Amino acid sequence: MAPPQVMKSAARSALDVFFEYDTPRIVHIRSKKVGLFNRFLQLSILAYIIGYAIVYKKGYQEFENVQSAVTTKVKGIAFSNGSIPGIGTRTWDVADYVIPPQENDAFFVMTNVVVTPGQTQTGCAEDPGVTGAICQTNADCEQVKGTILPSGSGPVTGECVPSDVPGSKEKVCQIFGWCPLENDKMQGDSPVLENAKNFTVFIKNNIEFPRFGVRQTKPSKQRKRHVLKKCQYDGASSRDKFCPIFRLETITEGAGVAFENISKEGGVMQIVIDWTCNLDYSVEDCVPEYTFRRLDKGDYSVSRGFNFRFADRYSVFNESTGLQLYRNLYKAYGVRFLVTVQGKAGKFSIVPLLLNIGSGMALLGVATIICDIMVLYVLKAKNFYRDKKYLDVKGQDAFEVLEEEAGPGEQMSEGSTNSVSRRNLTASDGGAAP
Amino acid sequence: MAPPQVMKSAARSALDVFFEYDTPRIVHIRSKKVGLFNRFLQLSILAYIIGYAIVYKKGYQEFENVQSAVTTKVKGIAFSNGSIPGIGTRTWDVADYVIPPQENDAFFVMTNVVVTPGQTQTGCAEDPGVTGAICQTNADCEQVKGTILPSGSGPVTGECVPSDVPGSKEKVCQIFGWCPLENDKMQGDSPVLENAKNFTVFIKNNIEFPRFGVRQTKPSKQRKRHVLKKCQYDGASSRDKFCPIFRLETITEGAGVAFENISKEGGVMQIVIDWTCNLDYSVEDCVPEYTFRRLDKGDYSVSRGFNFRFADRYSVFNESTGLQLYRNLYKAYGVRFLVTVQGKAGKFSIVPLLLNIGSGMALLGVATIICDIMVLYVLKAKNFYRDKKYLDVKGQDAFEVLEEEAGPGEQMSEGSTNSVSRRNLTASDGGAAP
Amino acid sequence: MAPPQVMKSAARSALDVFFEYDTPRIVHIRSKKVGLFNRFLQLSILAYIIGYAIVYKKGYQEFENVQSAVTTKVKGIAFSNGSIPGIGTRTWDVADYVIPPQENDAFFVMTNVVVTPGQTQTGCAEDPGVTGAICQTNADCEQVKGTILPSGSGPVTGECVPSDVPGSKEKVCQIFGWCPLENDKMQGDSPVLENAKNFTVFIKNNIEFPRFGVRQTKPSKQRKRHVLKKCQYDGASSRDKFCPIFRLETITEGAGVAFENISKEGGVMQIVIDWTCNLDYSVEDCVPEYTFRRLDKGDYSVSRGFNFRFADRYSVFNESTGLQLYRNLYKAYGVRFLVTVQGKAGKFSIVPLLLNIGSGMALLGVATIICDIMVLYVLKAKNFYRDKKYLDVKGQDAFEVLEEEAGPGEQMSEGSTNSVSRRNLTASDGGAAP
Repeated sequence: MAPPQVMKSAARSALDVFFEYDTPRIVHIRSKKVGLFNRFLQLSILAYIIGYAIVYKKGYQEFENVQSAVTTKVKGIAFSNGSIPGIGTRTWDVADYVIPPQENDAFFVMTNVVVTPGQTQTGCAEDPGVTGAICQTNADCEQVKGTILPSGSGPVTGECVPSDVPGSKEKVCQIFGWCPLENDKMQGDSPVLENAKNFTVFIKNNIEFPRFGVRQTKPSKQRKRHVLKKCQYDGASSRDKFCPIFRLETITEGAGVAFENISKEGGVMQIVIDWTCNLDYSVEDCVPEYTFRRLDKGDYSVSRGFNFRFADRYSVFNESTGLQLYRNLYKAYGVRFLVTVQGKAGKFSIVPLLLNIGSGMALLGVATIICDIMVLYVLKAKNFYRDKKYLDVKGQDAFEVLEEEAGPGEQMSEGSTNSVSRRNLTASDGGAAP
Repeated sequence: MAPPQVMKSAARSALDVFFEYDTPRIVHIRSKKVGLFNRFLQLSILAYIIGYAIVYKKGYQEFENVQSAVTTKVKGIAFSNGSIPGIGTRTWDVADYVIPPQENDAFFVMTNVVVTPGQTQTGCAEDPGVTGAICQTNADCEQVKGTILPSGSGPVTGECVPSDVPGSKEKVCQIFGWCPLENDKMQGDSPVLENAKNFTVFIKNNIEFPRFGVRQTKPSKQRKRHVLKKCQYDGASSRDKFCPIFRLETITEGAGVAFENISKEGGVMQIVIDWTCNLDYSVEDCVPEYTFRRLDKGDYSVSRGFNFRFADRYSVFNESTGLQLYRNLYKAYGVRFLVTVQGKAGKFSIVPLLLNIGSGMALLGVATIICDIMVLYVLKAKNFYRDKKYLDVKGQDAFEVLEEEAGPGEQMSEGSTNSVSRRNLTASDGGAAP
Repeated sequence: MAPPQVMKSAARSALDVFFEYDTPRIVHIRSKKVGLFNRFLQLSILAYIIGYAIVYKKGYQEFENVQSAVTTKVKGIAFSNGSIPGIGTRTWDVADYVIPPQENDAFFVMTNVVVTPGQTQTGCAEDPGVTGAICQTNADCEQVKGTILPSGSGPVTGECVPSDVPGSKEKVCQIFGWCPLENDKMQGDSPVLENAKNFTVFIKNNIEFPRFGVRQTKPSKQRKRHVLKKCQYDGASSRDKFCPIFRLETITEGAGVAFENISKEGGVMQIVIDWTCNLDYSVEDCVPEYTFRRLDKGDYSVSRGFNFRFADRYSVFNESTGLQLYRNLYKAYGVRFLVTVQGKAGKFSIVPLLLNIGSGMALLGVATIICDIMVLYVLKAKNFYRDKKYLDVKGQDAFEVLEEEAGPGEQMSEGSTNSVSRRNLTASDGGAAP
């Protein structure tokens, strides 16, 4: 039988290939148990594909992440009365309390401050709390002359001088550095800029989805110029929930933090602006959603709060020393606001839809695999089904261990009149079975 | 027939499993209509896999996103003549117009400024434009003493004083704060730092693809040290399109914005540096591509432009008051440049290639599913094909509704001499069909 | 035979569909060669799925990227002796050398500085090195009056004055600008803030995985408040490798850079904090891993190092000119540290596990495809196997080229008593084969 078949293979023209179609042969089992189980699995998978991957996860859309630029402008005036040492009676405006004046995706509002005014480079007594600073005579200090004590404020000059801490009778080594030393103790119970909670910040957030050609969308039709200038964000009311002007206290309260709890020691807040847009609907509906979180919580009690030091430097002409450099040192406590813009826009596209349908169809094969396990290994009638599903073919190099058990002609499950049985189809070199 | 089969199953050694191979039985249909449709589908899927997923999307490569560090250095000198109040004749250099002196992935160049020099903390007349500021007698102001009027500049002292707005005859409440009040009106038509368009910025962009061991690549071989120091970016010429030194006007024009349109009121520009590299080619070809966009466009007319306030603080010794704190307040308009580095490098790897081929093969099954639907449900000869494709097996618990219609022995499609027909194969508990 | 079958199809109730199950018919080939190859392929794919996709890539977990906020606090004192011109003997603290006082995910520590003190806006001689600055008479300068020479420091006033470079006898044009001109030559071999290597930085990194409800975890149980305040990062010792307080020299050495190599000219370092957490274990084990890299390496010799200019502005009252604006110009060299927080947390979830198992099962089909190629096209017995695998069916519109070669009744591979042979099953409109 071989020669004509070989010839046929040889003669099969390239054209022939285009008019063929291969499809698996199927055992169609009618069984309540298996059928129900099979359909249940298939429906679960279909529900996952259609319900979850396509509808819920919007598998019919292509997506683009938001491109964003944030600029912020804080407004507000605070007044501190004269009880705070080193500051005196003072009105604070935005150029005083926003430090540095601008940042990328962030802004800092000073709410409390400890000032050490009029420091200059000279000699003064070291803090008695510094290890090794206390001395009896100059000789004690000469030993460490020129070194900076751990946590000290400058190199030791070698002189032993009375401490200038009020009421202290100790003598300490003199250091050379910014004198008088910084006093970083907060005075009073309330923060210096108590009114900071009423400051407002206008967060200009220009976004773009370049692939879809969508730029910053008007939050809604009513949001006209004059409205925008006057509005104020209010999470509760639907009218003002898109307004990009925020009272600082509204932000902290949106994160469940009373402003009083954060203003004295400072803290870090995150403002999340989420632009999740479905551009299959009107771009009018592409609006931001604002959420607020406090970020400096955590288990380190040592890492609560937020502060840093900065200085104003200035020079003053003294008759005796000429031009002398001075500085006012500020230990600034306050709230650091980080603005995070996230989100993506989706729009219908045929490519992801086809891909999801395709991979979903492949997933349907898993139902068949699971049912096969049930049918071929679990059910009582497994041997019957196995007989129907499998055509046993023995290659020329079949494993011979069980050969003696499988005699020829035995068990003709797919019944036939020739010797090709379920168990003993045998290939011979280059030809079909005998 | 059951006992020997059971025995065989039992005796099937673990080794036997390694010498078996299961492959689906296939109906090979020769039909022009179905065959052409099938091949068309398969070719479409193959074209997608090979053309799109593997070649176009580089499915044979593994990718790594760029790691980048950006530092910027602006150079240039601008001169403003004496016509600008509060500034006078002045030459501006980089330490004057870049504020803050450095930022992360961004820099700001001041192009216009309104200065209120010599402010100090004292009392002065409130702006008559502030609601509630206008008064007739001290009594009017006493009522709001200590409060800060909305949009006011400080707490009301309680005195009613003549307004210091030139030509105004109104009386207004006195406030305590930074006096004189800020004058934030721009004077003149041209920006103060008109020459800002000729400033240059050197954007040092050190990138790395750690997985591939590629660091900042020379843009091209000619780009020697002396060339780099002198070159200037020019989008048009191929020689200088990789030069990292940019004239500010070239940047804005690259975004289609005339520098004159952005320099007076300020704005936000994005500089996108794209490092999309195919490391299967020479790393010499791994070069950046620069694009520019204006980010502060949009529908909010209120959010055009960019400005912020900052102050220089200094102390002056007065005979009468001792050391007095002063500040020069600047309202700085200018262009904020955001530098965004993106891109990824790809290099050949066998793992993603195999994965793409594998998932592509799985996708080919979809062609069969679609053709099956055509063959089994659409074509006129559907019953003939269904007969060939399916072997109908009736489990012991088959659904009995149609039982009477399917008599035994009927319709022996896969012709056989025993009673196993297409329609009445019946499983009995634990054994094969009789 | 057609009518009853059509009737049956018509009568198939919707309910019937739920009690069916389709499974492919399989050729079960027993062959050492093919079987071994098949099992080898399957095991490779299984090893990939289980070993790589599920176990190694944690395919049984759902993941969330880390949300992070970084704040930094640098501590340390440096002393520079009087040999540096323009600075004099000076002690430097954090308010002096961290510029700006805070940044987002970054901080800069000045290690070296060149100061030009006491600049004010007036006229002075241009740098003789500037092209076109050298003159013989005022007439030379009158020609370029009002223009800023390339790389010059201000507009030319029109006067020709002696150069103020020591030892120079040339005459140069006078310019109007910040005078005296900046001297940006470094003096001395060692950086001004030599002690900067001993500064420490506390990197407060508050992280969160909101989906899993995990906030900043204690690095370990021993990491108590008092320990944290005193610890110092040490990559080697397991006790202190989670400590978030770093000596600057430890950071540069962690990147393989001697601090001396980076402190004079400056540089850019990256601190990578990796929070890769497996939340199936205790959150106690969710600890950061620190790595350090130098970013300003590369091929541009011109882009080594890091420096920028900033100024302190102050006003001084002169009897003659009134209040005069001065500034101290600093060219600050130093190390810019960029803090990058990355990582993700994984936790067991049934959805990704099922998805991975599903797609893995689909991938197993690839083994069958490859073996089929071997069996049907490579092996000598390919025609025998092809005969077993395929049932040839000729549709009514079959391609007729080879028709004459396939006579009816020939080659009854699946042996049967009727005319349905492997080669001449023919579909007729709406019915089965004759």
